[in-house]
Amino acid sequence: MPYFDAASAAPLHPVARQALLAALDEGWADPARLYREGRRARLLLDAAREAAAEAVGCRPDELVFTSSGTTAVHAGIAGALSGRRRVGRHLAHSAVEHSSVLHAAAAHEADGGSVTEVPVDRSGAVDPAVYGDALRADTALACLQSANHEVGTEQPVAEVGALCAEAGVPLLVDAAQSLGWGPVPAGWSLLTASAHKWGGPAGVGLLAVRKGVRFAPRGPAGERESGRAPGFENLPAIVAAAASLRAVRAEAAAEAVRLRALVDRVRSVVAERVPDVEVVGDPERRLPHLVTFSCLYVDGETLLHELDRREFSVSSGSSCTSSTLTPSHVLRAMGVLSEGNIRVSLPPGTAGADVDRFLEVLPGVVAEVRERLGAPGAPLSPPRSPAPAASLVVDALGRRCPIPVIELAKVIGEVPVGATVTVLADDEAARLDIPAWCEMRGQEYVGEEPADRGSAYVVRRLG
Amino acid sequence: MPYFDAASAAPLHPVARQALLAALDEGWADPARLYREGRRARLLLDAAREAAAEAVGCRPDELVFTSSGTTAVHAGIAGALSGRRRVGRHLAHSAVEHSSVLHAAAAHEADGGSVTEVPVDRSGAVDPAVYGDALRADTALACLQSANHEVGTEQPVAEVGALCAEAGVPLLVDAAQSLGWGPVPAGWSLLTASAHKWGGPAGVGLLAVRKGVRFAPRGPAGERESGRAPGFENLPAIVAAAASLRAVRAEAAAEAVRLRALVDRVRSVVAERVPDVEVVGDPERRLPHLVTFSCLYVDGETLLHELDRREFSVSSGSSCTSSTLTPSHVLRAMGVLSEGNIRVSLPPGTAGADVDRFLEVLPGVVAEVRERLGAPGAPLSPPRSPAPAASLVVDALGRRCPIPVIELAKVIGEVPVGATVTVLADDEAARLDIPAWCEMRGQEYVGEEPADRGSAYVVRRLG
Repeated sequence: MPYFDAASAAPLHPVARQALLAALDEGWADPARLYREGRRARLLLDAAREAAAEAVGCRPDELVFTSSGTTAVHAGIAGALSGRRRVGRHLAHSAVEHSSVLHAAAAHEADGGSVTEVPVDRSGAVDPAVYGDALRADTALACLQSANHEVGTEQPVAEVGALCAEAGVPLLVDAAQSLGWGPVPAGWSLLTASAHKWGGPAGVGLLAVRKGVRFAPRGPAGERESGRAPGFENLPAIVAAAASLRAVRAEAAAEAVRLRALVDRVRSVVAERVPDVEVVGDPERRLPHLVTFSCLYVDGETLLHELDRREFSVSSGSSCTSSTLTPSHVLRAMGVLSEGNIRVSLPPGTAGADVDRFLEVLPGVVAEVRERLGAPGAPLSPPRSPAPAASLVVDALGRRCPIPVIELAKVIGEVPVGATVTVLADDEAARLDIPAWCEMRGQEYVGEEPADRGSAYVVRRLG
Repeated sequence: MPYFDAASAAPLHPVARQALLAALDEGWADPARLYREGRRARLLLDAAREAAAEAVGCRPDELVFTSSGTTAVHAGIAGALSGRRRVGRHLAHSAVEHSSVLHAAAAHEADGGSVTEVPVDRSGAVDPAVYGDALRADTALACLQSANHEVGTEQPVAEVGALCAEAGVPLLVDAAQSLGWGPVPAGWSLLTASAHKWGGPAGVGLLAVRKGVRFAPRGPAGERESGRAPGFENLPAIVAAAASLRAVRAEAAAEAVRLRALVDRVRSVVAERVPDVEVVGDPERRLPHLVTFSCLYVDGETLLHELDRREFSVSSGSSCTSSTLTPSHVLRAMGVLSEGNIRVSLPPGTAGADVDRFLEVLPGVVAEVRERLGAPGAPLSPPRSPAPAASLVVDALGRRCPIPVIELAKVIGEVPVGATVTVLADDEAARLDIPAWCEMRGQEYVGEEPADRGSAYVVRRLG
């Protein structure tokens, strides 16, 4: 049963399992205690910290273990902002950071701080020059992920790091998606990661803070992990996390080459065999194991279900798969299609045959879902007689993604070239997907106008 | 090798180990995902929540899993204070709460809130009437542990809960030490606990918030656990925690009777065989498995080391065993002796023979340490000739616990009845231990006076 969602969580690495079992026996006691069980736990904790620090590329006393990648990000951002409060209260981050960064930024803003969201290009990457322009005299912290969790695009961490260093601003790099594949390039001041993304257990995050970075932990004081992560250390999981990080790193170079080839295959075969598809993310500067694409006229949830029925586990950034019914903020920031979105992220060891089978199954599944939704065929039908209307309004109010786009595609052929179709819609995804459709179809997106309910999206037929 | 520090951490219960292993295979995926691995994880999470809620005595939707008991306490206190901010910013808690409560209270105070610490009696319990008096019109939250983690004394939770209900103040009960033994009596509005105290794995805490209690999570928003515990759920550990809670509860009634008898034996034999010892904590209203005593003229760290050499693992609230060189805040609040302090907390299954061996070994170890320190014998020597000095000053500046008390005991016989000995000391423990020594020895503690360095503690010889 092929599981292609390693970017969410990876199955436990065999080394992690083994280390966890050993540490359950040897490392359950309180490492702060003076008796033998405590001393044994302390030795394990120290060894795990050294191993993790070596993989991160920092000193052991710069690294603490947190209870998750999310808490590492929250603690790192809050601590750096507090530590540099005298400098100012401005925070910069890319528009495609993990939600833990966005939530920490929102909390900072609610608390009176200011935030700049640095935009990304259509591939999902920030432009270092644009990032550099966002740095101000009162910037306390800059955040940039090493690679994006939804589309795999690598960020120019070294370049942004250099600009931050010049400006005297510490850079926090969220390396959750990439740390298993290799160390983050120099230039970071704070680094965060999450063990269950590299095959370690859940319940362990890393927070590294370079010596010399001003850092003042927020919230109630803590006696453990240098006061940077409250609560009793989850030692067996920490030991397993460190052991598996070392193990996946040993296999990373070879496995990256193999998975990169599989992902290249997905990128080209999907574009070839599935009509009306947009493969997103940078084709070169990207994580080795991750590829994302969006299919016009398809809803992501149905697609997920159909693939699940055929035993493929993938995820989606489409609005219909989120609890808030909004498309992924990453796809939105990139300005790419969000409907029928599928993220494939291959765990280490993925069999090529499973990927081939996925590529065989996918086109049929997409076609089936499109047919069920009454999606229009690819070629634009010539204007029907009688004479076409000068312009049309389509009412898609109350209809969810991908229906507004399907309705648009159905009638665009009915207006003459140069005339417009206005789509009334209140589904959040329409704001992203109607312009994306225009881009894919070579039609002109005129813009969005306010309406009594929802919005009016105006499209001009060009061809 | 007898491990007698269950109140710090307990070895993993066999049921927890089994559940953990199963859940590592079945529950590693993201329970928020729609594919089969995610749905399987969701089922496990829901079942664990139901089992834990049943043991706590609440609805499943009132309970979330946190990453530790400490984070449960921090989140519970912060959320309740935020939720009731309009009522006021006053927080009440007992003086003997776990450090996580004290740290949260200190953070609240630093943030402009007000805090009342409710004192305890010599047994470590709050008086409900005194607690009731601490409740004010602007009290947003009251905190009271179910039982103390250092001396085992049970708190009058039901009585304080009734007073809180009358005053309309929610009561947060930290049940970390007692939840494995049974549910907390009615009267709580919020409840916290920690799995590794009952034989579950590290990395899991519980936070229950009764419906109707105003609660506003603080810090960055979270998408999991009702927004009350950020980060990816540590599902295998959660499953193991819930399974072991059910398992220890099934054995709790019988095991409590057995351990209570063993602890009674420790209480009486220690008092009988070790001279100059104070057994502390309520002898009746107490946890079944925990007993604490302090030995005059002994330093806790040496005692721990000597017991560890003989393969007994116990902990201590003496100042010399803490990183801050201050005696435990619990012993301080109780006003009992802190030097030579030992806490014995028996894990379920402790063999009676191990306890017997401990009781055989202990008196000799204490005597040995005392001899090494030159501690005075028990009977007060008659005044030496020539005629005794009218009063004496002993300079113990720069000397650590238990030396100031030993120096006092050495010279008290040299002054006439009615005269005083003044001990100059700058060790924090002296403030607690000199009055405690007076109490134990039937001498009068006159008081503490400022001095050039440290303090001057004045003792009057009564007999």
